[in-house]
Amino acid sequence: MTAKRSLPLSRVYQLLEPGPVVLLSTSLKGRANVMTLSWLTMMEFEPPLVGCVISDRNHSYGILEKTRECVINVPTVELSRQVVGCGNTTGRTTDKFAVFGLTPASASRVAAPLIAECYANLECRVFDARLLSRYSFFVLEVVKAWIDPGRKDPRTLHHRGGGSFMVAGETIKLPSKMK
Amino acid sequence: MTAKRSLPLSRVYQLLEPGPVVLLSTSLKGRANVMTLSWLTMMEFEPPLVGCVISDRNHSYGILEKTRECVINVPTVELSRQVVGCGNTTGRTTDKFAVFGLTPASASRVAAPLIAECYANLECRVFDARLLSRYSFFVLEVVKAWIDPGRKDPRTLHHRGGGSFMVAGETIKLPSKMK
Repeated sequence: MTAKRSLPLSRVYQLLEPGPVVLLSTSLKGRANVMTLSWLTMMEFEPPLVGCVISDRNHSYGILEKTRECVINVPTVELSRQVVGCGNTTGRTTDKFAVFGLTPASASRVAAPLIAECYANLECRVFDARLLSRYSFFVLEVVKAWIDPGRKDPRTLHHRGGGSFMVAGETIKLPSKMK
Repeated sequence: MTAKRSLPLSRVYQLLEPGPVVLLSTSLKGRANVMTLSWLTMMEFEPPLVGCVISDRNHSYGILEKTRECVINVPTVELSRQVVGCGNTTGRTTDKFAVFGLTPASASRVAAPLIAECYANLECRVFDARLLSRYSFFVLEVVKAWIDPGRKDPRTLHHRGGGSFMVAGETIKLPSKMK
């Protein structure tokens, strides 16, 4: 477990725009849960807003709706077993932190735990729950962000479906004028 | 330009979940435009719904709002120059297809053109425009999908910000029970 540093909120988009699979952690009455998630997008730079679809069949849906807090954790390929395991099981019957050997760490702004093994952690509050009935779509605001300063080109996982995952390859520089 | 085959709509998520930078093409009064886009997410498997944020400062915003049709084209690293070029310029003053040497091809269900050089093309109609005022968020329905059958592990581009792009690396198989 590496000491993380605070990441300016203005740079959160750099973690999520490449489309990594993430682990979303929640907590209800002292009991932590985690789910695997790929359906998310940036919606605003600063304060960073993130939209994500979470089916109401997921145990995390009810917790997030109730507590309005979560952490988006960004894992790398070393955590493949845990990422897939968290996606294949349900928090209704499984203590995923225990079963998959994940380490909960205290967040600074929310009750949901950071996953220590993930190279970045985004503490979030539900910003807008009005799209739940139509699309199971949560708009989250990132209120605090953490990153492992030692990880330059994190080998994130990117879901291709049917058990296939693309692993982040090389980073190239292009003359983009975008943020 | 390779002959493309039709891709079942049930497999569209496999193209977009990994988080590639895409080129969104539109057409108004016979004049085609294209923009570079990273803020999108799957919202439903079938019919495939895709949510994307397009700032109203983009020329494409008004066209899409008016015509309610577009094509999401998925480029690979060979098109880096075009991807960055389309992001750095505006369709208000630039014919991007001409300037960047992109080939428009007829779509089957919408008036917006496919970009022939991209390895996959998703013909879309606006499904829900109610989130435009609040989030500049279009919900699109993919009505027809095309893919180059010869491209197995496409080297898609993934935006990290500040001119950095991750290029899709190796594909691995994991025991995921997810779709």
